[in-house]
Amino acid sequence: MKTLLATTAAIGMMMAGILAATSHASEPAATPASPVYGVTLPQGYRQWELIAPALEDAPLNELRAVVGNAVAVDAYHRDSQPFPDGTVLVKLAWKRQPSAEFASATVPGAATTVQVMVKDSRKYAATGGWGFGRFVNGQPADEAQHRTCFACHEARAKGHDYVFTRYAP
Amino acid sequence: MKTLLATTAAIGMMMAGILAATSHASEPAATPASPVYGVTLPQGYRQWELIAPALEDAPLNELRAVVGNAVAVDAYHRDSQPFPDGTVLVKLAWKRQPSAEFASATVPGAATTVQVMVKDSRKYAATGGWGFGRFVNGQPADEAQHRTCFACHEARAKGHDYVFTRYAP
Repeated sequence: MKTLLATTAAIGMMMAGILAATSHASEPAATPASPVYGVTLPQGYRQWELIAPALEDAPLNELRAVVGNAVAVDAYHRDSQPFPDGTVLVKLAWKRQPSAEFASATVPGAATTVQVMVKDSRKYAATGGWGFGRFVNGQPADEAQHRTCFACHEARAKGHDYVFTRYAP
Repeated sequence: MKTLLATTAAIGMMMAGILAATSHASEPAATPASPVYGVTLPQGYRQWELIAPALEDAPLNELRAVVGNAVAVDAYHRDSQPFPDGTVLVKLAWKRQPSAEFASATVPGAATTVQVMVKDSRKYAATGGWGFGRFVNGQPADEAQHRTCFACHEARAKGHDYVFTRYAP
């Protein structure tokens, strides 16, 4: 079951990755909401504090960076889980590519997905208090993809309030 | 010559990486200045906007994130080089480690170095307008290491005002 869920999630993430590249820099004033959860891309997230970078190996081959709003950052600093209502985490992702200038370095290429987690313990009580949104080029992915989010977070990160990312020291 | 400089720089960076881990989270009120350049760790840099994440392969095996102050971010957004005086860039680095929860993911481990570039075209006229600082556990690396900074940036990133990192879209 765990494997099936993980596989489903991986396929969903891969599909999102294959779609056209997005630009994180251009944040529209109002963005469409994700299916299932009604989560939108938060305003100004590109300026939010870095929680941690990450690398995702093949088949995605992405560099990632998770950023958080002030509520999220404060919760991380207090090492306080569950995260309080109002926590918003955004994961930016880019295809990895070799640096043209430094052979041992890998740098971001085209943007792929922007993924959002919003904590609202009442609204999202059925999914651990979290609402999810996965966006490609500013547009939410389909319902099938959004059905995979919580299952994977529940299977693998329940002990950290369903959040994979730790604050990079 | 280029190879020698790059090798020297790599050894210097490796030495810094081998030293005790630092905590980026604990930023002292006043930090010692780097030799050669007199660059200090800027206050509040951990809250600065992400420019881009990166991965550095063996032997360093690090995840990195470059953040910039407002002057830097503005210059990136205008794609305007040379960077204006007052630009400050900070590169945070952590040992890479496999995620305990997601086999294909690599996440930050212990912090290694914090590296700073400060633009002051008059003060640092001899080094392309940039002053450099490399810190481990809040303490600057030695003079020998700081002698390697500009040579490597000059050899490899002169066409982008000596700055390797591009803004991740």
